[in-house]
Amino acid sequence: MNIDVCYTPELIHQFDVSDKTVVVIDVLRATSCMVAGLGSGVASITPVASVEECEALGAQGYVMAGERNGEKLPQFHLGNSPFDYMEKSLKGQKIATTTTNGTRALYLSKDAPEVIIGAFLNLKAVVNHLSKSKRDILLFCAGWKGKYNLEDSLFAGAVLDGLKKQAEFDSDAATAAFYLYQSMGKDPYYFISRSNHAKRLSKFGILKDIEYCSRCNEFDVVPKLKNGELVV
Amino acid sequence: MNIDVCYTPELIHQFDVSDKTVVVIDVLRATSCMVAGLGSGVASITPVASVEECEALGAQGYVMAGERNGEKLPQFHLGNSPFDYMEKSLKGQKIATTTTNGTRALYLSKDAPEVIIGAFLNLKAVVNHLSKSKRDILLFCAGWKGKYNLEDSLFAGAVLDGLKKQAEFDSDAATAAFYLYQSMGKDPYYFISRSNHAKRLSKFGILKDIEYCSRCNEFDVVPKLKNGELVV
Repeated sequence: MNIDVCYTPELIHQFDVSDKTVVVIDVLRATSCMVAGLGSGVASITPVASVEECEALGAQGYVMAGERNGEKLPQFHLGNSPFDYMEKSLKGQKIATTTTNGTRALYLSKDAPEVIIGAFLNLKAVVNHLSKSKRDILLFCAGWKGKYNLEDSLFAGAVLDGLKKQAEFDSDAATAAFYLYQSMGKDPYYFISRSNHAKRLSKFGILKDIEYCSRCNEFDVVPKLKNGELVV
Repeated sequence: MNIDVCYTPELIHQFDVSDKTVVVIDVLRATSCMVAGLGSGVASITPVASVEECEALGAQGYVMAGERNGEKLPQFHLGNSPFDYMEKSLKGQKIATTTTNGTRALYLSKDAPEVIIGAFLNLKAVVNHLSKSKRDILLFCAGWKGKYNLEDSLFAGAVLDGLKKQAEFDSDAATAAFYLYQSMGKDPYYFISRSNHAKRLSKFGILKDIEYCSRCNEFDVVPKLKNGELVV
């Protein structure tokens, strides 16, 4: 199997996802929240593009979650913190969520035969799952408003590092992500906390989210997209 | 001054070039050729988008140069090898050139107040020039057909490394290029020869071009775009 990396949604047209397993990556914080929630007993998470769609699902009994530019929307039950998603009261509940970057990357992956969710929180589970894949793989970084970002690229490098014995990666994007991880991977928190996104988030006083999203292997789950909702 | 990195022409809309010095980078091989030619006494190099425009300048006495997909066009005098550009007979001549990636990046930089040409061949000259800049700087990688590429990103990292004491760089793209260079920069030829582009070029039997384009500081020139032509 071959693995490639797409650094931002604005480059996804360069890749054919129709025969690949796509790993959607939005470390700060959408995919970390999804892993934390589904790893803590949430029944399903339905990603939607707009606030209106989220509210429509809210009217059907879904817990509404999400952010715009890093901030919780006032009418929503949950923001975009992994701690929000781990609340005991959410066990067995369905969540509808809309976020700035992660939701867009999920939408753009919809033609792939398999879409899974990756974050440092489930790194080992993702690597184990992919190591058994018969398909080629695309690691799809959600980026930030279309721009390259450090934390998602670093996670892509971590996955490549975990699969280096089983898989080929010969694209320049994958090679660069692999070497980025070699130079930064010893201490993801150090580098992630210095990323542009972390600096933006720290204005909202959520350093504990950044620290938590940099932790590896807190959950042994691989959320998958099935009929528009994420489940494990 | 602040420095940022644009990894491919398909992301250039994310940057405002109107107040910046833009360094156009196409290590394999357009900007290496430009540095080699202008460093060897060529009078000027005029980058044009199409084969037809190149031929129109050829009719006015310009030496025609360029490639499509790495191969010289049969009606042209020169291909896209730095050795072509260093021929003694070209001293004082004007060259018109069209290439797959480099020309596009130059065209997309046209609104910037200053556009210069960077390659490993003139790395130190570029760093020295930029260290005196009063403007912010964008390192603009030509990429390969819109995709991220290793050799241009590595050169961007080399420039950042050279300017780390004088300049700020806080974007994730710049941070990643800087760390990529930390992990690969000791031996650019080793990594560049393993890049996708080098593998494509090696099919044309031009490994000596790749080796030459990986050399640092062969020329102490900084080609600049002035009224549509590159001069030193």
